[in-house]
Amino acid sequence: MRQELKEILVTTADQGLYEITESVRAFTKSSSITNGLLTAYCRHTSASLVIQENADPDVQRDLLAFFRRLVPDGDPLFVHTMEGADDMPAHVKTALTQTSLAIPIVDGRLALGTWQGIFLFEHRKQPHIRKIVLHVIGA
Amino acid sequence: MRQELKEILVTTADQGLYEITESVRAFTKSSSITNGLLTAYCRHTSASLVIQENADPDVQRDLLAFFRRLVPDGDPLFVHTMEGADDMPAHVKTALTQTSLAIPIVDGRLALGTWQGIFLFEHRKQPHIRKIVLHVIGA
Amino acid sequence: MRQELKEILVTTADQGLYEITESVRAFTKSSSITNGLLTAYCRHTSASLVIQENADPDVQRDLLAFFRRLVPDGDPLFVHTMEGADDMPAHVKTALTQTSLAIPIVDGRLALGTWQGIFLFEHRKQPHIRKIVLHVIGA
Repeated sequence: MRQELKEILVTTADQGLYEITESVRAFTKSSSITNGLLTAYCRHTSASLVIQENADPDVQRDLLAFFRRLVPDGDPLFVHTMEGADDMPAHVKTALTQTSLAIPIVDGRLALGTWQGIFLFEHRKQPHIRKIVLHVIGA
Repeated sequence: MRQELKEILVTTADQGLYEITESVRAFTKSSSITNGLLTAYCRHTSASLVIQENADPDVQRDLLAFFRRLVPDGDPLFVHTMEGADDMPAHVKTALTQTSLAIPIVDGRLALGTWQGIFLFEHRKQPHIRKIVLHVIGA
Repeated sequence: MRQELKEILVTTADQGLYEITESVRAFTKSSSITNGLLTAYCRHTSASLVIQENADPDVQRDLLAFFRRLVPDGDPLFVHTMEGADDMPAHVKTALTQTSLAIPIVDGRLALGTWQGIFLFEHRKQPHIRKIVLHVIGA
């Protein structure tokens, strides 16, 4: 049994989904682990992780639109506003999605379904550099 | 330290919760791992995983009702409609719940609480065969 | 490769966020694992786990306020009411957040970001003693 760790960076320009599937796939391949478990971990509280369809870009547009309507920027419910109108909504959207994801590795490949892609979900409007830690364990 | 992998299939007939606790328990037992970690992974973007109460069926009914109200089929917000009025809501419900779940194994048993069951959450109305990958690692 | 398991208890007095970062950090340190993966698992269906900002207490207040508005206690949508007006909303809030969290361990430390804390999210008003199982694997 072996393991590997790596931190990857994602540069974001605005709220939205940023696909990281290829980076995760490359790390998995470079580890030479045939069967095991890949974990992705997002080191932030205003950005998160989701697995979503990566075929039709409208899915990503609609997902973003839904979360914007559900947790509107500038909602008067929020007291924590000093870091911007999109900061507290970003924390809520992070709680509603994922900070960590686990994906089995089977026969040298991530067990992603046909339409599944791995995305960083950026909830802030300002540009950020986001850190994601990847861990793989297996044989 | 050892590991095992298995794919299980779940046949669904409509939106709703389908309990898979017994299949996961049987896999864990067959692995003969006494202490470790079980991961369940759903290979879809319109079905997901949740851990919920499995005592009163009304809990499952209410959970379904809540998600239907929160993300209504046919919501005019959505542009991605070519796969049906329940397709984009299915992607959103998947993002709001889990694609992967991890459960420790302690003394040969899943560390599920007294009332916890593991469920596939089907978000589409049409029948589907859903694939879930199980991974266990431990000793 | 080694692993450790531990159950920790969290005493709750009302709905809200209870930080468990130090308990998880102490367990990780006591395991002497330098690189690996920490998993926290909540053994309940009316309490859950979230990773959130632990700097400004207003973030926790706002997060609680948002979930209370999204899933109001006593919502007439719910049929499962015999365990109290806050019981079914507690199940829904659990489904919307996390039952398990995975955090990599890098150079002997949890890979938490600067502002990240680990919280038990209690969804019931009555006092409870909540059980969280911690598992660490690595070398």
